[in-house]
Amino acid sequence: MTAQTLIEKILQREKRAVSRSITIIEQGDENSKELLKNIYAKTGKAYRIGITGPPGAGKSTLTNQLTKYFRSRNKTVAIIAVDPTSPFTGGALLGDRVRMSEIGMDEGVFIRSMATRGSLGGLSKKTIDAADVLDAAGFDYILFETVGVGQSELDIARTADTTMVTLVPESGDSIQAMKAGLMEIADMFVLNKSDRPGADNALLSLQASLMTRSHDEHTWMPPVIKSVATENKGITEIADVIALHKDYLALDGRFQKKREINSKIRIKNIIETQIKEELWTMEREASLNEFLAKVSLGHLSPYHIAEEIIIQYKNDFDRH
Amino acid sequence: MTAQTLIEKILQREKRAVSRSITIIEQGDENSKELLKNIYAKTGKAYRIGITGPPGAGKSTLTNQLTKYFRSRNKTVAIIAVDPTSPFTGGALLGDRVRMSEIGMDEGVFIRSMATRGSLGGLSKKTIDAADVLDAAGFDYILFETVGVGQSELDIARTADTTMVTLVPESGDSIQAMKAGLMEIADMFVLNKSDRPGADNALLSLQASLMTRSHDEHTWMPPVIKSVATENKGITEIADVIALHKDYLALDGRFQKKREINSKIRIKNIIETQIKEELWTMEREASLNEFLAKVSLGHLSPYHIAEEIIIQYKNDFDRH
Repeated sequence: MTAQTLIEKILQREKRAVSRSITIIEQGDENSKELLKNIYAKTGKAYRIGITGPPGAGKSTLTNQLTKYFRSRNKTVAIIAVDPTSPFTGGALLGDRVRMSEIGMDEGVFIRSMATRGSLGGLSKKTIDAADVLDAAGFDYILFETVGVGQSELDIARTADTTMVTLVPESGDSIQAMKAGLMEIADMFVLNKSDRPGADNALLSLQASLMTRSHDEHTWMPPVIKSVATENKGITEIADVIALHKDYLALDGRFQKKREINSKIRIKNIIETQIKEELWTMEREASLNEFLAKVSLGHLSPYHIAEEIIIQYKNDFDRH
Repeated sequence: MTAQTLIEKILQREKRAVSRSITIIEQGDENSKELLKNIYAKTGKAYRIGITGPPGAGKSTLTNQLTKYFRSRNKTVAIIAVDPTSPFTGGALLGDRVRMSEIGMDEGVFIRSMATRGSLGGLSKKTIDAADVLDAAGFDYILFETVGVGQSELDIARTADTTMVTLVPESGDSIQAMKAGLMEIADMFVLNKSDRPGADNALLSLQASLMTRSHDEHTWMPPVIKSVATENKGITEIADVIALHKDYLALDGRFQKKREINSKIRIKNIIETQIKEELWTMEREASLNEFLAKVSLGHLSPYHIAEEIIIQYKNDFDRH
């Protein structure tokens, strides 16, 4: 398939072409860059929703129910599930299988998992690149499902238009643990599994912490919604809050501003990733390894060696 | 004070000189680099212990008790408390005040907080730099106390010789949430507040997850220790495990190997930080901001702009 054909098929929302494009993006070479440059003009219409929170909060089920809700309104949905691969988490795979059987066959739904496996921190970049393809393909909603643990996963959620943080009643500790990172990025909280004991207390304590933040009448105050995703309870309310937040962003140029900030973060990320790639060539890695023996012997400090490597790097520029 | 005098005073373990040196490191300019180059030959004797875990696990109290234990053995201790500054965490400051009154006046103890405030991701680099000063100053133990939330905090804990992950019985969710990040870095687990209900179950479930990892007779299996830090229970056991792990590292060149890996990570970090600083000059930030308007209008893709900025960056090299 030529690059031009691929783009045409993306624009027709052909799932196989979309899937193939994301594989190209995962490989991250020149083809990926060219593709992204060429489709960019076709992006900007999809609404992006970030769904994050600790493992076990029911994010996959929520994502599935929300997808069904959007489909019942005739909207198309693409899901990117970001899987922080670890030998200890097997959940993602199981969730994927359930998901595929429930909504995977629907023509208006596209599902893709992207893993951190061996991606050297470039995951948030690639995930956001993939969203461009889904946007160009004309999906109405793009849902980023991430586990709010690593920085990279937080970065992905943060670049959404509306970010939903999912918690469960008994995650008092988790709330503590996640506060620092998750409070700042949440446009709304979903207290899932809220038929469990302690839901009302958790709700109140969450609302109380939210009130301590400085705000005026123009500040968006993240609502807290109770849900039981497995029983489809609270899903309409979640969709309503998303719509409300979308309306809020539409005022006073907020949406434009938010997208601009996200573009800036994204461009910086692209630049830094490329520079890192050019920096850590196999030759330079080998050179660093040779120097390391001298650090161990105490002959050279890490700063001395860093200087040497930076000089090598800059000299290589001059030669190109 | 001249640079030479400062170094002499560091080597004499003068607290004010040590404190001033860390301030220089926090500023991170040429003085900092020179200082670090000059003291490097005097480092390598301190044993570095990372103490991490979710907020509320009692890390500060554990650190204080462990410090008292080492002092009772006539060992000197330096503590670096890494504070992931957020409008929502006030805990660190309170803990600091208690700590200062308990152990801060002891001549053989040095305490320093380092905050993420405005540090643009360079925190792990600066913290590890600060440890060099403390090492050169002759402290026997350096304790890094971090909150296992952000990548930067995990990086700090990871560079220690022995890394202790602190949890509490009821943090079932936290364990889940933190697993992916914390399991891999732990050389030992401390189940603090283990007088609370559920301690034995938490212990068993933790041990069970540890056993699922592939291991042979040469693998260090992270022990799980129960403690009640506020009552000084379990502290001797913790110190014993640290000693055991130190002995383990001493065999088969493991210590050397571990330090070499840490040096490598550190040097890469130094290089990448410097390159980022040179990349994001005020001029280049301004240039990026100008370009941004064109992305919003859909005229240029983020990849086009990234290319432009990278060309600017490389051209600046040629001119220097």
